[in-house]
Amino acid sequence: MQVTSLRIAVSSARKFINTGSLSRLWNLVNKLHAADIASLTEHLTFRERMILFNTLYENDKETAVDVIREIDPEDTAQILKACPIDQITELFHLSAPDDVAAIMPLLPEDLKEAVLEAMEDKPSEDLLELLEYEEETAGRIMSPNFYALNQNTKVSDTITAMQLGGDVESAFYLYVIDDLGHLVGVVSIRQVLFRRPDTPLKNFMNTDLISVSTDTDQEIVARNVADYNLVAIPVVDAENILVGVVTVDDIIDVIDKEATEDMYKMVSLDSTDRIQDSPLSSVKKRLPFLLFSLLTASIAPAIVHGFTGTIEKVVQLAVFIPLVMALGGIAGNQTIAIIVREIAIGQTDWLSTRKALLKEIIVGLVNGLVIGSITGILSFLLFNNFFHGIIIGVAIIINLFIAAFMGTLIPLILKLIKLDPALGSVNLLTMCTDSIGVLTYLGLGTLFLSKF
Amino acid sequence: MQVTSLRIAVSSARKFINTGSLSRLWNLVNKLHAADIASLTEHLTFRERMILFNTLYENDKETAVDVIREIDPEDTAQILKACPIDQITELFHLSAPDDVAAIMPLLPEDLKEAVLEAMEDKPSEDLLELLEYEEETAGRIMSPNFYALNQNTKVSDTITAMQLGGDVESAFYLYVIDDLGHLVGVVSIRQVLFRRPDTPLKNFMNTDLISVSTDTDQEIVARNVADYNLVAIPVVDAENILVGVVTVDDIIDVIDKEATEDMYKMVSLDSTDRIQDSPLSSVKKRLPFLLFSLLTASIAPAIVHGFTGTIEKVVQLAVFIPLVMALGGIAGNQTIAIIVREIAIGQTDWLSTRKALLKEIIVGLVNGLVIGSITGILSFLLFNNFFHGIIIGVAIIINLFIAAFMGTLIPLILKLIKLDPALGSVNLLTMCTDSIGVLTYLGLGTLFLSKF
Repeated sequence: MQVTSLRIAVSSARKFINTGSLSRLWNLVNKLHAADIASLTEHLTFRERMILFNTLYENDKETAVDVIREIDPEDTAQILKACPIDQITELFHLSAPDDVAAIMPLLPEDLKEAVLEAMEDKPSEDLLELLEYEEETAGRIMSPNFYALNQNTKVSDTITAMQLGGDVESAFYLYVIDDLGHLVGVVSIRQVLFRRPDTPLKNFMNTDLISVSTDTDQEIVARNVADYNLVAIPVVDAENILVGVVTVDDIIDVIDKEATEDMYKMVSLDSTDRIQDSPLSSVKKRLPFLLFSLLTASIAPAIVHGFTGTIEKVVQLAVFIPLVMALGGIAGNQTIAIIVREIAIGQTDWLSTRKALLKEIIVGLVNGLVIGSITGILSFLLFNNFFHGIIIGVAIIINLFIAAFMGTLIPLILKLIKLDPALGSVNLLTMCTDSIGVLTYLGLGTLFLSKF
Repeated sequence: MQVTSLRIAVSSARKFINTGSLSRLWNLVNKLHAADIASLTEHLTFRERMILFNTLYENDKETAVDVIREIDPEDTAQILKACPIDQITELFHLSAPDDVAAIMPLLPEDLKEAVLEAMEDKPSEDLLELLEYEEETAGRIMSPNFYALNQNTKVSDTITAMQLGGDVESAFYLYVIDDLGHLVGVVSIRQVLFRRPDTPLKNFMNTDLISVSTDTDQEIVARNVADYNLVAIPVVDAENILVGVVTVDDIIDVIDKEATEDMYKMVSLDSTDRIQDSPLSSVKKRLPFLLFSLLTASIAPAIVHGFTGTIEKVVQLAVFIPLVMALGGIAGNQTIAIIVREIAIGQTDWLSTRKALLKEIIVGLVNGLVIGSITGILSFLLFNNFFHGIIIGVAIIINLFIAAFMGTLIPLILKLIKLDPALGSVNLLTMCTDSIGVLTYLGLGTLFLSKF
């Protein structure tokens, strides 16, 4: 939807909601795609959102379910918390099990139990099974609905089976299994059209197929789909029995979420922090990180405090403290961004680590030599003090070396100790560059105090 | 491919390459998926990569073409630059026009002309047309091969047409056009199976379809595919004539590239800077940014220089310079990351801008009050100076306000003046927080100089 037409839709919807013109509201949204209604809700207050949602629910439950699919699970959970249990149960019965499995863990414990209990008169085995897999694994995001046929099925029976099978979410491949349910091959639905009616699937199925297991991390599932250009990937259990399929639309959500998380974790942000959140909720999420930053940021001042004697004698030395800090931070951020992103997209492991470290160190040293020399010369010209020029130059060279060294190591060490490579990496890095930068600069200043 | 099996493949490949065992090399890679061979090449030196590539080319040109598809176009261009023209021409003839269109602009001008000339004896109209569209638009990344049939085509003829049509890249939808070639509908290939043989397509085609035009920015194409859960999106020209299709595998590449670019541009990195690049090439890419940073980072030292008189009198004031700078930078990075990412994923416009700005300012002020008060109290306890506590506290509150204010405005202003919202945003922000933070802190210190 174009930004301008979204803007018009939002302002019309708000007018209808706030004047109670709910039939006009329904006429408006009824013409929109579910994804557009979902974007629209992001611009509404919570009260307005509830009115819109109830209007959808009362007019067409299928639309309400389609919109739920498109909204962030966190936002959906917020809406459902304000709904009566029978309404939630009804919507869940109409939804795909994988969509319900995404929302369920975000509901409060007591509501979750109440809903599961209320659903028990018409229990969904699929849903209960999905909920048993760990969050952020293939098992949790897969759809348990897919086309799978025995390898001996003939093309004619395959077509009949598909016609009888009804609607299966984005079915672009047909999976082939053996008598025990093991995944043995795949054919595209289009391939079926090319074959004679009496050909069994096993004669032309593709056996060189890529699958993941239920406990595979969703980011690895996404990398497989991206690397092998798939539109869906089959999920098997420990015995290679086909249990579900992850489709590419869910993969795009994972990739988007992964990229957001990397960027947010780098700067110590909670990945659920959103622009639409209330200020209070964002303060709650950011304050703990800032308090932690107060700790990491206190090392450099402590070092400066140790050098007040030097600064008292040569006050000029205070001038370049901000420059040493800023350049170290900027160069280190560059290295961190590259390493974090390469780990996310590529397969950066310890094989390529030494190479990466060596390379970044060389880059850091060369950049340091250039930037350090320029700063040193400028400083000499400005202050007419040869030694101050040397000191600031050397401090910058050393700090850009530290930035490259720590910028490479911090994400890799975080990964090695099984934390997210991006987690707070920028904070940790500036802690290193700020403190080592100030220490080198003021340390050298103290050493050559007599030369000023 | 698992990291461990990739590691084994890489070390075997290097052994075979460096001992000249090229038939064993071919046996090794022949068993791999093209995407895996592509990952493997990333761990080879340029010389090794050329030997591998020539081995592929000599044994099976189709495999060489498949691998080219999977490698970054930049890397492919590097390889091709070292190949004779007839080899390039041959590979290009075997490749899909959209893949060639991605590589072509990365070749040196004279080589490009020579290749186009050499291809002219068997010119590809499709390729020449694709090359006419602007880079990073739907026209440039679309495939000109797709299934399109007239709306009056019967189901039986549709199936025959598809059987005769041969292999079309990831054909999951069948597009429906009118007598003039205008796009009027879409059916999934599966839907065709459900209908009676004499039904014309127009009777059951979906007319409510999402399309983009040839000049649509590739990021907007990607957002459409993501929002509407598509696996392919049709591309039309100004007259609504169907001219191509963008498939979801290309969309995933765009989304990955977009996320990398946002992160890199935030920290002033060239988006082509890769971990595998030579140190020299990375230095060339990063040095200009660092020189620019030297300028932006020089404002804060200039301000400190103006206050040397104050610092000379109260050397304590130098101690908290790093703290004011660090906290402003950290808080500002958080705001920037949120705004940049929301612009990238969502539809953040001026409608939501005022709300976002107001919210970030409130968050900045509340966080500032908490962190500023804590720092003020700690400083009072450490230095036993009431006024220094007040000054550092107030400086931090003001700097966290500036961080929130500028962190929101910088990306939005960059977007308003048609630049990338992420471009150098972290540099610009730290320039603001560093200089305003130092100015507030030392300015207040000078104002209350008599109180120390």
